[in-house]
Amino acid sequence: MDYKHAGVDIDAGNEVVRRIKGLARGTATAGVLSDLGSFGGLFRLGASGLQDPVLVASADGVGTKLRVAFMAGIHDTVGEDLVNHCVNDILVQGAAPLFFLDYLATGRLDPDVAVKIVEGLARACRANGCALLGGETAEMPGFYADGEYDVAGFIVGAVDRSRLVDGRGIAAGDVLIGLPSSGLHTNGYSLARSIVFDRLKLSASDRVPELETTVAAALLKPHRSYLPVVRPLLDGGLAIKGMAHITGGGITDNLPRVLPDGTEARVHLDAWDVPPIFRWLQRGGGVPREDMLRTFNMGIGLILVVAAQDAEATLGALRDAGETGAVRIGEIGAGSGGVRYS
Amino acid sequence: MDYKHAGVDIDAGNEVVRRIKGLARGTATAGVLSDLGSFGGLFRLGASGLQDPVLVASADGVGTKLRVAFMAGIHDTVGEDLVNHCVNDILVQGAAPLFFLDYLATGRLDPDVAVKIVEGLARACRANGCALLGGETAEMPGFYADGEYDVAGFIVGAVDRSRLVDGRGIAAGDVLIGLPSSGLHTNGYSLARSIVFDRLKLSASDRVPELETTVAAALLKPHRSYLPVVRPLLDGGLAIKGMAHITGGGITDNLPRVLPDGTEARVHLDAWDVPPIFRWLQRGGGVPREDMLRTFNMGIGLILVVAAQDAEATLGALRDAGETGAVRIGEIGAGSGGVRYS
Repeated sequence: MDYKHAGVDIDAGNEVVRRIKGLARGTATAGVLSDLGSFGGLFRLGASGLQDPVLVASADGVGTKLRVAFMAGIHDTVGEDLVNHCVNDILVQGAAPLFFLDYLATGRLDPDVAVKIVEGLARACRANGCALLGGETAEMPGFYADGEYDVAGFIVGAVDRSRLVDGRGIAAGDVLIGLPSSGLHTNGYSLARSIVFDRLKLSASDRVPELETTVAAALLKPHRSYLPVVRPLLDGGLAIKGMAHITGGGITDNLPRVLPDGTEARVHLDAWDVPPIFRWLQRGGGVPREDMLRTFNMGIGLILVVAAQDAEATLGALRDAGETGAVRIGEIGAGSGGVRYS
Repeated sequence: MDYKHAGVDIDAGNEVVRRIKGLARGTATAGVLSDLGSFGGLFRLGASGLQDPVLVASADGVGTKLRVAFMAGIHDTVGEDLVNHCVNDILVQGAAPLFFLDYLATGRLDPDVAVKIVEGLARACRANGCALLGGETAEMPGFYADGEYDVAGFIVGAVDRSRLVDGRGIAAGDVLIGLPSSGLHTNGYSLARSIVFDRLKLSASDRVPELETTVAAALLKPHRSYLPVVRPLLDGGLAIKGMAHITGGGITDNLPRVLPDGTEARVHLDAWDVPPIFRWLQRGGGVPREDMLRTFNMGIGLILVVAAQDAEATLGALRDAGETGAVRIGEIGAGSGGVRYS
């Protein structure tokens, strides 16, 4: 007996490492000291020029959006989802990304699929100025069904301590500004798949007239990164009091994560147009509004909290940065931490 | 329809977060600024007192050792495996761990199992002076069989640039010092399980006379951390030229990762006693020696490369640090990068 007979192909693993080395190299930034394949990835912090650096780190997965990718045979966008999700999770605390590592686990390693996944990771890393510093590719026979895999991402960014965005200064009267999502992002896919494939009995390639595209294209739209439109505000010194990335749990569970005691968020649901995909899912599944709001982003992927007198300047700066869809969606009031919808 | 009917239980997720917050808090070090549950974990680097900090990061999994844990119903040691594996992966470049994040994915979230896993992570984090800074718990219906999960870890450590251990100075005549492993660590489990469960037809609770314990206990022995015995050498200024963590691929594939061009490693297989578990597996599976050496650590979990004149001092310092099993296992010669066994 040997390892290959037990279902693990070391040579396939080495082939993947060789092929993704070039992709990783294409993402290298000033801080990177190592090449892929060393035990740890090396990143020199001095290049970041921070006075009192606070590292901000986050771990995430793509969730069952992966299953839509499997159905459609499209493997080069889930990496974008993952990187952009991670970038947003640290952006809301004011951090710029430094580097990213991935964990890719599969039952039987298909080098072509693995390379496609890493192509997506590398493309998004480059777009966010974030180095793909390392990762782990695990072949685990019997853990994953044939042709399936799971992928997780880890990001580290940095921010000067004095410029941390932590929501502490949020007070009644502050304004909530919502930035549009590009679709479902990476949350709510177990429910969405259940509605689309089990209840509506559609297949990935079916065209949905009211979405003007196929099921696969609608559901696989990559999670967008808010770094390009929010970074200029942070660099420009605009006072953002708090930010929430609207992920699993929707506005209902995510916005309260940045609210100080004694406050609540008041969100006006008529302040923005809920995109067709959410209305289609709600109708298709007969999902109560409350559950929609606690499962999906409903068209708002990031929320900024600013002082009322800064609201117009913030909207203007967002427009200057290319973000045309930002809208005022509510305000902060006195309360006990939740979100009140009207 | 709602999210719970689609197989995702947000309340179970929130219960897990609540229960593991206390465990994470118990691992906090001077640098930790955030509590579990913020979008990103915050770590202030100033506390580390480094002049020119290089961050060293690594991602890893536990591999199919997890399946032995499932069979035995023991979930609080895989976290130790994961943290210690990660700690060793950055230790070999000279880095001390700063913080750790985990990714835990399961089909149906069992809060008790999730908490057991995090207990193991937290115990090992505390033992290594490493903060458990955050993580992601993903419930992915249909991705994992009932009662199964996958877990990945991500570590960030730091080292002053001038004290990076990178193997560059390694030259012919240098000495290889091997440190004992505590068992299979986290590699080779697909082959080991295939031998033990498929070929020898044993069950997890069977007692193996020559191992003086049960199959489960022998196979689940936690991956040890080399930080407590190697850190004193690094802090004491002993010149370690290179270090290799012997993981997937064995000595054969891992030692060459730190060798400069023009050198090779010459390892004497009679220099140490291969522990009973490896001999038992080799015999049970009829595994060729070459495959054993490229799959398992064979009793050597970490290798140090030092100048010949530093070998005795290094062995003495290791003994002073409590490491009694370190032995000289070979030397560096002129060659083309591989390992030559004799």
